[in-house]
Amino acid sequence: MIKKPTLIVSESICRKNIAKMYSKAIASNTVLRPHFKTHQNITIGEWYREVGISKIAVSSVSMAKMFADQGWTDILIAFPFNPNEIEEIHNLANHTNLGLLVSCIDSAELASTIVKSSLDIYIKIDVGTHRTGFLPDNIGEISKALEYISSNKCLKFRGFVAHAGHTYGSSNHDEIRSIYRIGVGALLKLKKQFSVEFSDIIISWGDTPSCSIINDFEGVDEIRPGNFVFYDLMQHNINVCKPNEIALIVACPVVAKHTDRNEIVIYGGAVHLSKDSILVDGKNVFGLMVRLSNDLSWSFFEDNVYVDRISQEHGVIKVSNEIINELAIGDFIGIVPVHSCLTADLVKDFIFIA
Amino acid sequence: MIKKPTLIVSESICRKNIAKMYSKAIASNTVLRPHFKTHQNITIGEWYREVGISKIAVSSVSMAKMFADQGWTDILIAFPFNPNEIEEIHNLANHTNLGLLVSCIDSAELASTIVKSSLDIYIKIDVGTHRTGFLPDNIGEISKALEYISSNKCLKFRGFVAHAGHTYGSSNHDEIRSIYRIGVGALLKLKKQFSVEFSDIIISWGDTPSCSIINDFEGVDEIRPGNFVFYDLMQHNINVCKPNEIALIVACPVVAKHTDRNEIVIYGGAVHLSKDSILVDGKNVFGLMVRLSNDLSWSFFEDNVYVDRISQEHGVIKVSNEIINELAIGDFIGIVPVHSCLTADLVKDFIFIA
Repeated sequence: MIKKPTLIVSESICRKNIAKMYSKAIASNTVLRPHFKTHQNITIGEWYREVGISKIAVSSVSMAKMFADQGWTDILIAFPFNPNEIEEIHNLANHTNLGLLVSCIDSAELASTIVKSSLDIYIKIDVGTHRTGFLPDNIGEISKALEYISSNKCLKFRGFVAHAGHTYGSSNHDEIRSIYRIGVGALLKLKKQFSVEFSDIIISWGDTPSCSIINDFEGVDEIRPGNFVFYDLMQHNINVCKPNEIALIVACPVVAKHTDRNEIVIYGGAVHLSKDSILVDGKNVFGLMVRLSNDLSWSFFEDNVYVDRISQEHGVIKVSNEIINELAIGDFIGIVPVHSCLTADLVKDFIFIA
Repeated sequence: MIKKPTLIVSESICRKNIAKMYSKAIASNTVLRPHFKTHQNITIGEWYREVGISKIAVSSVSMAKMFADQGWTDILIAFPFNPNEIEEIHNLANHTNLGLLVSCIDSAELASTIVKSSLDIYIKIDVGTHRTGFLPDNIGEISKALEYISSNKCLKFRGFVAHAGHTYGSSNHDEIRSIYRIGVGALLKLKKQFSVEFSDIIISWGDTPSCSIINDFEGVDEIRPGNFVFYDLMQHNINVCKPNEIALIVACPVVAKHTDRNEIVIYGGAVHLSKDSILVDGKNVFGLMVRLSNDLSWSFFEDNVYVDRISQEHGVIKVSNEIINELAIGDFIGIVPVHSCLTADLVKDFIFIA
């Protein structure tokens, strides 16, 4: 019996999401290296392993260690190299096939100086998100970075990595496809440019929105989506998943009813859902309310009911007369979070349902 | 030596903040019942105990249990009563002076039915935030709630509780003072109204902004601020604390430099700082950058430098030529978080400095 805000994960939906992405990758002769920062969960890791996944991405050294301890042996830390953790990186590199990422020239230079264990190194390319990475037309700096990398015999240059985070701001599939085409085009051009010195360059592509709607990854050696295992309200909002592909909700008890303004208050706030929001009709919302059954499965309301505002532990939801009348204090409802990665990071204990 | 995003807390600043609030409360003959949801930390709890604090507020049953285990015996769970945790509440009530809060009529009715251990009960009054609570002029429902409470001999009605969360949206001290005056006025009126049946009603007032700028709490029996122990960028932005009263920063390593656009990328994102933001010049920002010394103390830049955007682990900051030139990959900088309560909840391991 659940008593307080609890993360509920549907095993069957996760497994379907994994199978779908994996079969698309296989059909395109592309490696699926799922990003495990989304779930950070050992059991879900095993579901990936069962379909045949052997390479994973993570976003921190500690996550790499956690999964290395579970027998994962090919791990890319898909986050700019943090030299302060070089000791932990060396330890990990001793017993895994570890990949690091450099995303600016100073980082490449530093890696060439301080890395003393054999590991793979990737160059992060900025395909338009402008968060981090080398600009694809900055051949001078990329060449220089490759020189630094080649100067350290421990480092093996493996390829170019991109994450098109700007697909999250897309309004339609055409826009996402266009970002994918332009970004992959830039990576392929780099691969060709440096193919004389490096014969086995791979290009590795991230982001769930594009990986969800692209079916043929021809030319892309590796994809690294993560969020697709759960999906969430943000992905649903940009129309890259269906409601029945959302695998995670937070079950929250109703703790107050304000019938004068048709609002319910739930035990479920920023420490459970995160403060991530999406704009719906010009207003930030913090989750989507769903009906929760006794077996902890959920179903969607006909009209969308959003979490209107949240504070540390409170969520406030404006509901219809019908809904407020059928709910009693202590009843659980479900919330589809805006961003499942942040929610899973906050509420680390999952309950799995079939 | 720190290696990754780390929460740094200044003991001397915390102790000064505690001493200042405590002495104001003492001078007003008001009880300071600090809200421990901000820090959720045993050591900081002891700093409160040392000045003479014996009553605390928390926002969940599990937090109540954590502090009861540390010898705190007077605990108010300042969050609407969650009946699903009644067993844990009964257990706690057996060995602490436990207070619960009801914030709507259905909650009062349910509490009157299911509570079987002696405990204090408070009625939450909505003084204008419209998150939850009884409206102060809804005497009919408040009377009815008191009837329910009185019908269960285990329950002792203790008083009216309010949290003026809308002070966070204030633009100046006058506005905050006005919210305080109106809210406290409403509580005092209720106290008077029900003083015949209940001779020892207390009124308990929350929120850090008003408790920070009000000096004389005359008539208020208890104040429950929490955030003031750390303060943060949000409080600084509404001008209720000085920079030298901010007691907490997150130390973050620089992992990339993009000199073409004067941006640095830090290891420090939504899983460390939370996605809470404040508007500065019409733009959401996610923290304020400060200089970090080797001893982990920090100092402010002359011009404010804000965290421009964040994702799960990345933060991006636009900086001056001077700053970008003096920083190397791996160097630590400090970030004053927007909301210290959420940051402390995310990064549970603190490092204390003098």
